[in-house]
Amino acid sequence: MRPVDEQLQIMSYGTAEILPQDELRKKLLKAVETNTPLRVKLGLDPSAPDIHLGHTVVLRKLKQFQDLGHQIVLIIGDFTGRIGDPSGKSVTRKPLTEEQVLANARTYEEQIFKILDPAKTEVHFNSEWLGKLNFADVLTLASKYTVARMLERDDFQKRYAEERPISIHEFMYPLMQGYDSIAIRADIEFGGTDQKFNLLVGRHLQGESGQEPQIVITMPLLEGLDGVQKMSKSLGNYIGIDEPAKEMYGKAMSIPDELMSRYFMLVTDMPQEEQEQLSAALADGSMHPRDAKMLLARTIVELYHGAAAAQDAEEEFVRVFQQHSLPSEIEGLRVETAEVWLPQLLQTAGMVASNSEGKRAIAQGAVRLDGEKVTEENVTLQDGAVLQVGKRKYRKIELA
Amino acid sequence: MRPVDEQLQIMSYGTAEILPQDELRKKLLKAVETNTPLRVKLGLDPSAPDIHLGHTVVLRKLKQFQDLGHQIVLIIGDFTGRIGDPSGKSVTRKPLTEEQVLANARTYEEQIFKILDPAKTEVHFNSEWLGKLNFADVLTLASKYTVARMLERDDFQKRYAEERPISIHEFMYPLMQGYDSIAIRADIEFGGTDQKFNLLVGRHLQGESGQEPQIVITMPLLEGLDGVQKMSKSLGNYIGIDEPAKEMYGKAMSIPDELMSRYFMLVTDMPQEEQEQLSAALADGSMHPRDAKMLLARTIVELYHGAAAAQDAEEEFVRVFQQHSLPSEIEGLRVETAEVWLPQLLQTAGMVASNSEGKRAIAQGAVRLDGEKVTEENVTLQDGAVLQVGKRKYRKIELA
Repeated sequence: MRPVDEQLQIMSYGTAEILPQDELRKKLLKAVETNTPLRVKLGLDPSAPDIHLGHTVVLRKLKQFQDLGHQIVLIIGDFTGRIGDPSGKSVTRKPLTEEQVLANARTYEEQIFKILDPAKTEVHFNSEWLGKLNFADVLTLASKYTVARMLERDDFQKRYAEERPISIHEFMYPLMQGYDSIAIRADIEFGGTDQKFNLLVGRHLQGESGQEPQIVITMPLLEGLDGVQKMSKSLGNYIGIDEPAKEMYGKAMSIPDELMSRYFMLVTDMPQEEQEQLSAALADGSMHPRDAKMLLARTIVELYHGAAAAQDAEEEFVRVFQQHSLPSEIEGLRVETAEVWLPQLLQTAGMVASNSEGKRAIAQGAVRLDGEKVTEENVTLQDGAVLQVGKRKYRKIELA
Repeated sequence: MRPVDEQLQIMSYGTAEILPQDELRKKLLKAVETNTPLRVKLGLDPSAPDIHLGHTVVLRKLKQFQDLGHQIVLIIGDFTGRIGDPSGKSVTRKPLTEEQVLANARTYEEQIFKILDPAKTEVHFNSEWLGKLNFADVLTLASKYTVARMLERDDFQKRYAEERPISIHEFMYPLMQGYDSIAIRADIEFGGTDQKFNLLVGRHLQGESGQEPQIVITMPLLEGLDGVQKMSKSLGNYIGIDEPAKEMYGKAMSIPDELMSRYFMLVTDMPQEEQEQLSAALADGSMHPRDAKMLLARTIVELYHGAAAAQDAEEEFVRVFQQHSLPSEIEGLRVETAEVWLPQLLQTAGMVASNSEGKRAIAQGAVRLDGEKVTEENVTLQDGAVLQVGKRKYRKIELA
């Protein structure tokens, strides 16, 4: 293993908090002395297996721990996933079947192992141990934490103050997550900054059960393409790691300028020193933000699709957006009659989500036919004409 | 079954609260119409199986329900008894072994069936159903109640406000008691006024699980012999139903005058009309409180030892206390030397709890030797002398 200080430097870069910092050094010292890898835990929710760049912030950090010789332990929270929301109040937390959990877990692994080395990763389903607890065990677990401390969690505190109901079973979830840490004897647990409370519960429960408490490391939450909100699938402001290279490149080019350095730090492998040089070059104007963003986009695509695909995506992007020319391949759109109500056609072709979005796009001048802005909703189409919505959606008309 | 109004009149007498009153009438109407007994639940804590008059308040009421044709269902809380206090913080809630629970349950039954008819009483151990719940079942149960409502329970509210810790598992106990009501399909649950919150939780959970919610009936808490605090074994202000007739009679004679009517109402079978006549007689001075108290004492002893024993106890009491003569039989106390330090001897003989209590008793003139007040702590004893502490404790000295 590499020396403690070198490891600490790599481990700390880009993290939000390490709690407590001095214990991490102690654990590392022991690990190096005894040549025993640290057990580094990450919990995953099997209800939403699509991984986007937001998730990769912590996964890339885990990869660094893995490269330093430590043991990554992924916990798939199938136990809670299969229970869903027992109060029946949440539509989004419907119980998953065993098949769904397994399918989601497979999807997870496929995506996660684009980042982590599967040979050096343990994967557990927490039903392994949680499914075996009986009522007496649950009471013992629940006896290790107080109501007042649980109510300190931000969201609970807010709901309690606003007199919105908190069901008692909700208090059990942080305890279950903490029990996972005991079950796998975690040395470190990772999560986003929004998970800090739950991770600290695990730390406390390990201490109560006589284990050396885990270190808690939180990672910053990555802002999405809107530049404001946390990247998430439901907000649509995400780049999925399974997206096609060209789509990924295009989306990366829409990352706000002010977030570029943050993206380099959190979602790429660029060495710290190079990142600093780049930030300096942007600051003193010796590098154009567009060039930095293209570098970022190419770097991201390369991680998930390789250098060749990244090169292709960049060339395509330059051709279409910078030279205002058409993409090299345009999807065909078969149309039965030349006279059409365009909002409906756009919706049917999947270029807009609804007729009303189509109407809006036309009114805003975002729809073009052979390069000319469309101003009417009813139009007459020519065979071979190119229909365009916004900057990236094209169809070639094929009249029947 | 007797008519609804007659039943309601008997059922209501002496209760603290019936929640809700109108639903009890509805349940009774249906019971009478379909000739189906109501299922009437009482939960018992197997950690303290000695029954005193305080417990009989609710047991006598259950007997009335039984006599009206309803089904009594006793729940022995062995499940929690065997868990004890999983936080390990309470010395008084050490886990009981299965043998202890069974032994306590037997003691309970022996005593309870002095009041209830065993042939018409169902007895269950709640481990029957609680022992079968898994973690998922517990989460479902816990999802049916909110943190805010649980924190409304007086003791939780107080502790939370005073920042004294409440462990999360403590929130589970009212839910478990409520689950018992679901398991046995209770129509009515009884308890002391201090149990009101827990009983209402059962009512709520039954509703959540699709059952007709139970009626909650609370009984007043009986004040002990001190006239102030709730009768309890730990406070020593109790009359146990297994105590010898003479002891029971003597203790009953120390019930404060102002509580006599309450005792007649809550722990005897005296018909309501007679009770009212007696209260009136006491109020207008036509009856002497001492005579009323002797009637109360005799009535209580009769319930647990029969008429002859009650008669004997009364005669003994009159001889010793009213005629200031000695009791007919005095326990011997073997003493090795005639010269003794009396506080120590009183303690060894079990007449006082400690040497210092012995010293205090002497200083207060409460200790007599052959009828003479003792003023010194060091005394010389004669063989056959009668040693007396207070009004009821005697020993005959047997010099070695």
